[in-house]
Amino acid sequence: MDNIKIVFLEEPELKSPIMVEGLPGVGNVGKLAAEHLLEQVKATKFADIYSKFFPPQVLLDDDGVIRLVNNQLYYSKGSGDRPDIIFLTGDYQGLTPEGQYELSDYILQLSKKWKVKMIFTLGGYGIGKMIEKPRVLGAATDLDLVEEMKKKGVIFSKGEPGSGIVGASGLLLGLGKIEGIKAVCLMGETSGYFVDPKGAEAVLRVLASILNVEIDFSELETKAEQIDMITSKLKEIEQPPEPRREDLGYIG
Amino acid sequence: MDNIKIVFLEEPELKSPIMVEGLPGVGNVGKLAAEHLLEQVKATKFADIYSKFFPPQVLLDDDGVIRLVNNQLYYSKGSGDRPDIIFLTGDYQGLTPEGQYELSDYILQLSKKWKVKMIFTLGGYGIGKMIEKPRVLGAATDLDLVEEMKKKGVIFSKGEPGSGIVGASGLLLGLGKIEGIKAVCLMGETSGYFVDPKGAEAVLRVLASILNVEIDFSELETKAEQIDMITSKLKEIEQPPEPRREDLGYIG
Amino acid sequence: MDNIKIVFLEEPELKSPIMVEGLPGVGNVGKLAAEHLLEQVKATKFADIYSKFFPPQVLLDDDGVIRLVNNQLYYSKGSGDRPDIIFLTGDYQGLTPEGQYELSDYILQLSKKWKVKMIFTLGGYGIGKMIEKPRVLGAATDLDLVEEMKKKGVIFSKGEPGSGIVGASGLLLGLGKIEGIKAVCLMGETSGYFVDPKGAEAVLRVLASILNVEIDFSELETKAEQIDMITSKLKEIEQPPEPRREDLGYIG
Amino acid sequence: MDNIKIVFLEEPELKSPIMVEGLPGVGNVGKLAAEHLLEQVKATKFADIYSKFFPPQVLLDDDGVIRLVNNQLYYSKGSGDRPDIIFLTGDYQGLTPEGQYELSDYILQLSKKWKVKMIFTLGGYGIGKMIEKPRVLGAATDLDLVEEMKKKGVIFSKGEPGSGIVGASGLLLGLGKIEGIKAVCLMGETSGYFVDPKGAEAVLRVLASILNVEIDFSELETKAEQIDMITSKLKEIEQPPEPRREDLGYIG
Repeated sequence: MDNIKIVFLEEPELKSPIMVEGLPGVGNVGKLAAEHLLEQVKATKFADIYSKFFPPQVLLDDDGVIRLVNNQLYYSKGSGDRPDIIFLTGDYQGLTPEGQYELSDYILQLSKKWKVKMIFTLGGYGIGKMIEKPRVLGAATDLDLVEEMKKKGVIFSKGEPGSGIVGASGLLLGLGKIEGIKAVCLMGETSGYFVDPKGAEAVLRVLASILNVEIDFSELETKAEQIDMITSKLKEIEQPPEPRREDLGYIG
Repeated sequence: MDNIKIVFLEEPELKSPIMVEGLPGVGNVGKLAAEHLLEQVKATKFADIYSKFFPPQVLLDDDGVIRLVNNQLYYSKGSGDRPDIIFLTGDYQGLTPEGQYELSDYILQLSKKWKVKMIFTLGGYGIGKMIEKPRVLGAATDLDLVEEMKKKGVIFSKGEPGSGIVGASGLLLGLGKIEGIKAVCLMGETSGYFVDPKGAEAVLRVLASILNVEIDFSELETKAEQIDMITSKLKEIEQPPEPRREDLGYIG
Repeated sequence: MDNIKIVFLEEPELKSPIMVEGLPGVGNVGKLAAEHLLEQVKATKFADIYSKFFPPQVLLDDDGVIRLVNNQLYYSKGSGDRPDIIFLTGDYQGLTPEGQYELSDYILQLSKKWKVKMIFTLGGYGIGKMIEKPRVLGAATDLDLVEEMKKKGVIFSKGEPGSGIVGASGLLLGLGKIEGIKAVCLMGETSGYFVDPKGAEAVLRVLASILNVEIDFSELETKAEQIDMITSKLKEIEQPPEPRREDLGYIG
Repeated sequence: MDNIKIVFLEEPELKSPIMVEGLPGVGNVGKLAAEHLLEQVKATKFADIYSKFFPPQVLLDDDGVIRLVNNQLYYSKGSGDRPDIIFLTGDYQGLTPEGQYELSDYILQLSKKWKVKMIFTLGGYGIGKMIEKPRVLGAATDLDLVEEMKKKGVIFSKGEPGSGIVGASGLLLGLGKIEGIKAVCLMGETSGYFVDPKGAEAVLRVLASILNVEIDFSELETKAEQIDMITSKLKEIEQPPEPRREDLGYIG
C-alpha cells in the first residue's frame, strides 16, 4: 500500500494559485479559518488525500455512511484582484514526525506541479491564557515576505513563538523554502484551551485583506460568543463567590 | 522479511463470497460473534496470515505445541439462500496505525481477487455502562446499504458512534469504499468492561438473518450468564450493604 | 544503511549444528545459561550482528575501548555424542515488534543456510515470587519434540505460560515452524525480580543432558548464592521485626 | 521523500580533515563545545542536513524568517600544526533509534568520501550533582588511541560511563569502528541539570591542545558564571534558612 494516496474528483485548471492550509492544531484556529474562508468563497472539493500516517479510523455522516479520515483539497477560481486559491484542510495531521514530513513533502510536490505562487499556512499561537483581542503573528520563508506582511498588519515579534512552529504549518514553510516555494505562516493568538473562533477570525481578517476576499464573519462571531458563554460559565464554577469570613471560622 | 505473509492450507473455489470480519476489539464482541458463526456453519480454515505488525509472540496449545500469533481465514460453502462465506478472525489487530492500514489493504486485495461481493465487519460499541438489551448499530459504505440494513433491524443513529470506528472494522469499510467494495459494520452495544457474549449474540442475530444462517445461540447464552454472574459478584464487592447509622457514629 | 549487518571473524564448517539462543529477558535466565554453556565448551566467537533495531549505544571495555551493542554468534565443534553447536547471545533483543521479527527471520535464514538441525531457545518464566527449586517448562514446534523433551525432564504444563512466549525465544519457534525448522523453548522458573543464576542452572542441567555436555556449575552456583544473600538482606529491610503490641497502643 | 537530504552551500577541498561532532545532549556540553570552537576558528558553514528523523519543526530568526531544523557542517582550513577541521553540529539528534543509526551512518559515509582522518565526538557525562572541576573522560575505537589520549589528559576510568555512550557521540565511534574510521569520544562531567558551559570548557581545553588551536575561553566562562549565579539562587530557594527551634514548637 502506498504511504499516501490521492483520489481526484476533478482536475481544475488554475492560474498561479495561492494555497491556504488549515489543519487541526492549537485551538483549531487554522482549520476553522481555512474552512470558513472556503465556505465564503464557495470553493469546490477536487481531491481527497488518504494516508497510513493518519489514524486507522472512519467517520460517519448523519445517515450512517462512512468516509475514511483524510485531508481534502478545494479550489476557488479568482476574479478581479482575487487570485485562484487551493485550500488544504482535513481531519488530522500526520501522526508521526516521519508522517508529517512525508505529507508536507507530498503537498509541496503537488504545489510545484500546479505552479502554486505562494502558500499561506494558518495556525494558532497558544499563550496559555484567555485573550480578548488576539494578535496575528507571522513567520515567512524570506525577509521580503516579512516586510510585505508587516504592511498587512501581521506582527513579527522577536522570540515569538519561542519554540518555533511545529507540524504542517511549519513544515510547509521549512520544506517549501528548500524547494524554492514562498510561504507565510499566520498564527492567531489563542488560549489553546478551547476551539477558538476568535483567533480564527483574527487570522482571517488579515488573510482576507491580502487575498482581496470579502468575508462575512457573522458565523464565526456567533461561534465565538457560544465559546465565550461556555468559558465564562466554567470560570464561575472554578471560582465560586468568595465565602464570607464567618464561613471559615471553623478552620482558623 | 515481508510485512505480511500468508500460508494457504487450501485454496477453495468460492462463488461471490461474503466476507465476515471479527477481530479482537471493544468487549471482544466482533471476535466472539465471528467465531461463533464459523463454528455454527462448520467453516474450514484455509489460510494463516502472519505479520510483523502483530506482537512478537507465540501461543501454546494444551500439549505445549506453539503457533505464531496470526489472523486466520475460514470458508463455508453456501447452500440454498445461504451464500459462500469467508471468515477473517485472529489473535490481534495490527499494533500500529501503519500496520492497521497495511493489513486491511492486504485483506481487501485478497477480497478483490476472490470477487468478494460484500464485507460485514463486526465489532462492539462501548457505552461505558452495563446494558440489558444491546442494540446493533450500523455504518455502511453507501446509502443504499444503509436502507437495506435498516430493514434488517440495524439501527443507524445520528452521532453514534461519535468518534467514528477505529481499527480493522472501520478500515475495511473506509479503504473498501475507495476500492469499490461494499461493506457494512455491525456494532453490538457493550459496556466495554468485559468480554461480552450478549453483545456478540445481538450482532449475530442480525447477521444470521441477513445471511440466512440458522444459529444455535445456547453456547453464547451460557457464556453470557457466566459473565453476568461474575459481574454481579463484582458489583456486590464494590457496593457493600449500607452500614447501619450507628456504625458511623464515630465519624459524625 | 541495512537493517541488519553481520561481520564474520571466521566462517566455520559445521555438521548439522544445534543452535542455542540465550538473549536478555526475564531474570536474564536465557542469556546466563547460554553464556555459561559457551564458556564451558570453550566456544569461539565467529560473527557479530549489528542492527538499527538495537539501541544507538556503545559499550566500553575496561580499557576504554568501545564496541557497538550487538548480538554474537559462537561455535563449538562436537565430539563423540556431543553435536556441533552454534550459540546466539548478545546485549539486546530488537527494540520494536518489527525489529524482533526482522532479527529472528535473519537468524532463521542463516540457520537454513547452515543446515541447523534444531534450535533450543532459553528463557525465564516469571512467576512473581521467589522460588527454591525452579522447574523447567517447555514449548516446541511439534508434538514429537514435546514427547522427546518430556523424557528429558522438561515439564509441559497446560496453560503455562498462559500468555505464550514473547520475544526471540518465542519467535524463533514461531517463524521456525513456518520455515520447517524444529525448535524447543526451555524456560526456567524465576521470580523475575533479579538476575537469576538458579533458573539458568535448572535450564542448563536439562540442556546439558540433551546435548551430552559435561558442565561445571560451580560458577553459576556461586552467583546464585550471592543473589540469595542480597535478596534475603532486602527481605529483612522490607519486613522489619514485628513491633510489640504496646508500640501500637496509640493507634488503637 | 528521502530519509536524509543534504544541501551544499559550498564543497570545500580539505586535506585529511579531522571531524568534530557536538550535537545536543547531556548538559548540552558537546554542542556548546563544538560551537565555541567553530566560532574561535572562524569556521564556514558549507552544508545543511535535513531529515525526517528530526522533529517536524521550523525555528524563527529575530526577523521572523524560518529555517527547518537541521544538522550543519562547517569547515576550517588548517595552518601549521592545525589540521583542516569539519564541524558537525545542529538543533537535534535523530528522534528514534533507527533515525540515530541512519544519521550516523550517513555522516560516516560522507567522512569516508572526504577521507576524514579521525573523528572527535563531544558530549557530557551526567553525574547527577553539581561539580566544581569537571574531569574529561574518554572512549576510543582502539587501544592505541586510548594511550594517545591519556597523554593529553583524557581520563579513562574503568566502569565509567557504566551504561556506555548513547546517541550520535557513541554511534559515530561504534559504526566508525566497523567502517575502519578512528574515533574518540570526549565527555565533560556535568550535573546534567543545566546547560553546562563549564563542562564544555573542560572538553575544549583538551581538544584544543590535541588540535593545536588557540582558544579564548572568556565567552564560555561568562556563560558559566551566569549559570552559576542562577543555580546558587535556585539553591537558596530550595534550602531556606533553617527555622529557629521555637518555630517548630507546635510539631514536637
